[in-house]
Amino acid sequence: VSAVSAQRAGAAVGVPVAELETPALVVDLDVLERNLARVASYADEHGLALYPHAKTHKTVEIARKQLDAGAGGLTVAKSEEAAIFARELGVPLVLHYPIVGAEKVERGAEIAGEVPLTVAVDSLEAAEPLAAGLRRRGVVAEALVELDVGLGRTGVATPEDAVELAAGIDALEGGLSLAGLSVYPGHLRHGGSADPGAGIGRVGERLTETIERFDRAGLRRERVSGGSTATLFASHRTPVTEIRPGNYALLDRAEGRGDFTLADCALRVQATVVSTSLPGRFVIDAGAKTLSDAAPPAGLDGYGFIVGRDDLALAALSEEHGHGEALAGAAGVEVGDRLEVVPNHACTCVNLHDRIYGARGGVVEVEMPVIARGMVR
Amino acid sequence: VSAVSAQRAGAAVGVPVAELETPALVVDLDVLERNLARVASYADEHGLALYPHAKTHKTVEIARKQLDAGAGGLTVAKSEEAAIFARELGVPLVLHYPIVGAEKVERGAEIAGEVPLTVAVDSLEAAEPLAAGLRRRGVVAEALVELDVGLGRTGVATPEDAVELAAGIDALEGGLSLAGLSVYPGHLRHGGSADPGAGIGRVGERLTETIERFDRAGLRRERVSGGSTATLFASHRTPVTEIRPGNYALLDRAEGRGDFTLADCALRVQATVVSTSLPGRFVIDAGAKTLSDAAPPAGLDGYGFIVGRDDLALAALSEEHGHGEALAGAAGVEVGDRLEVVPNHACTCVNLHDRIYGARGGVVEVEMPVIARGMVR
Repeated sequence: VSAVSAQRAGAAVGVPVAELETPALVVDLDVLERNLARVASYADEHGLALYPHAKTHKTVEIARKQLDAGAGGLTVAKSEEAAIFARELGVPLVLHYPIVGAEKVERGAEIAGEVPLTVAVDSLEAAEPLAAGLRRRGVVAEALVELDVGLGRTGVATPEDAVELAAGIDALEGGLSLAGLSVYPGHLRHGGSADPGAGIGRVGERLTETIERFDRAGLRRERVSGGSTATLFASHRTPVTEIRPGNYALLDRAEGRGDFTLADCALRVQATVVSTSLPGRFVIDAGAKTLSDAAPPAGLDGYGFIVGRDDLALAALSEEHGHGEALAGAAGVEVGDRLEVVPNHACTCVNLHDRIYGARGGVVEVEMPVIARGMVR
Repeated sequence: VSAVSAQRAGAAVGVPVAELETPALVVDLDVLERNLARVASYADEHGLALYPHAKTHKTVEIARKQLDAGAGGLTVAKSEEAAIFARELGVPLVLHYPIVGAEKVERGAEIAGEVPLTVAVDSLEAAEPLAAGLRRRGVVAEALVELDVGLGRTGVATPEDAVELAAGIDALEGGLSLAGLSVYPGHLRHGGSADPGAGIGRVGERLTETIERFDRAGLRRERVSGGSTATLFASHRTPVTEIRPGNYALLDRAEGRGDFTLADCALRVQATVVSTSLPGRFVIDAGAKTLSDAAPPAGLDGYGFIVGRDDLALAALSEEHGHGEALAGAAGVEVGDRLEVVPNHACTCVNLHDRIYGARGGVVEVEMPVIARGMVR
């Protein structure tokens, strides 16, 4: 059956977005480039190095645009993502995830032999075998000690713990070169109880205290890395020297507020109404396997924003069905109608797809393979 | 960087599951085959045709096991899934999703020329162009009129509507051949307010009423298709002639109860503890991009069941982090420990991966490419 081969590379270039078979993941390149330029300009203005997190888009094409806009390298979460971007782009990489396990140590060392590699570390248990693996290959990676600042995920618990771990890394016999600190203030989100503006002050205080302790102990900390799109434009209020936002490139319902708006959401899912058989309801061909089943962001309901249709809600998702509801006074919805959806979470949405269509002025300009999709290790 | 090529096909055959690089998706083949045999035996005992829904596993290998166990064909949700299974296995397919759009009509017609194709229909707006497309190719697909029985998703609202649509399909000039009815009682789930056992009686009554109306109108209804794993073993209490469960093959936290138990959950994610830096917490390398961010099933908390460790909970997921909590009195968890996780939802979990490792007695026997993953159209 040749119907599958209709997915051949490049077939959609020049096709109007409105004519793409649905569901289709489309990035508006003008909006994307505006987002990239805005953040690059902010980073430049405040003298911050920019390492965009490639987990959001997982494409070479968008990564290249980020580098062209002034990024000094890329951030990745998995060693296989790192391997792909090292091979494809050969730029400095920040692997901001604990590297645990013999295969990952080996892969990390291999990558460190190809490009300048920085790793985040929150335990000596992980740091020691990694350093040994790097030494075996005769390569070095820079290490950032990760400090938890409130999210409660990875990162050591206290400034004292950070100093202890940094000293431990310093005492290793090569492989890892202590370069500083890293934080991820992912607990500060718009729409929730933890206001990003108020919370970032406490993050800054925590970092300042840790830096002072590093200095007293004579530990290197020329790099201080911050992350997160929600607090991006407050980065200069903290003592970070570099940032690694990811979501800012595409944006979504969760992050398209605060300093951003829905108009900045470059990623849209083109969908088609496939059923209107029940009163007040409709179904689109974009469910959890197209949008991801990311929960509604704090303060919002539903599983996607239907662009230009405030009279419609996406109330729930099955695997392949988006469950639509027509609100009071809604205009009609008919089988075959096309709708455009901003997903709750761009990063998990992209991760479900093999390609993103890059469009300008409503016409596909480029197909971007989600090359690092499926790189779970 | 050659580290990526470590994913070469077949490299894991013969490797102990405990030595697979994590995260890794593993199916216990003995458990899988027991599930398949049990359901095939039930269907056989009650004279029900079995069309397992391939969306759960999206692999040729598991589909073949289902066919070998006695399935008459497969169910799929997307036209691209249908194209793949038609090409790979050449068996009868039930495309249980509204076919809307010129490309999908074309693909459907192409598939109907390759294998016996059945489609579910809930509107004449979708049925008419589909029938025309089938006629253009000189092929025929059987049509099942979908009736909503309480989920509120697709399917016509009432028995009267079902008769009207069936008559409309019958009046078309070929392409679609009316064969009967279809329902999906997906609102009946364990752990929620709608008890499957009590609810299935009402589904049966609704179907009986519709069948009687079909008979009075002289409409064909030799096939009556039911679905859903939660109500699987009550199918014979309703007037269905065939069933199309999907989840029963792998099972998960949502469906591994009621008639099934967690011991029947064939799908497990092998994960590694990568951080224990915060008191009472730990992080595993399986987050929403590995397990899917499927919400906790009704009546349960958390994002996965950690096998054999009732003292540990998987409280939340980031994209690549599983946020673990050690409950009161928990035994230790150390960086590098391996844990085995039963996901909340097998179908959305599998859909994130490129391969499933099929293991027997703790050793990988086969790598199964998730061949229909990414077939969103």
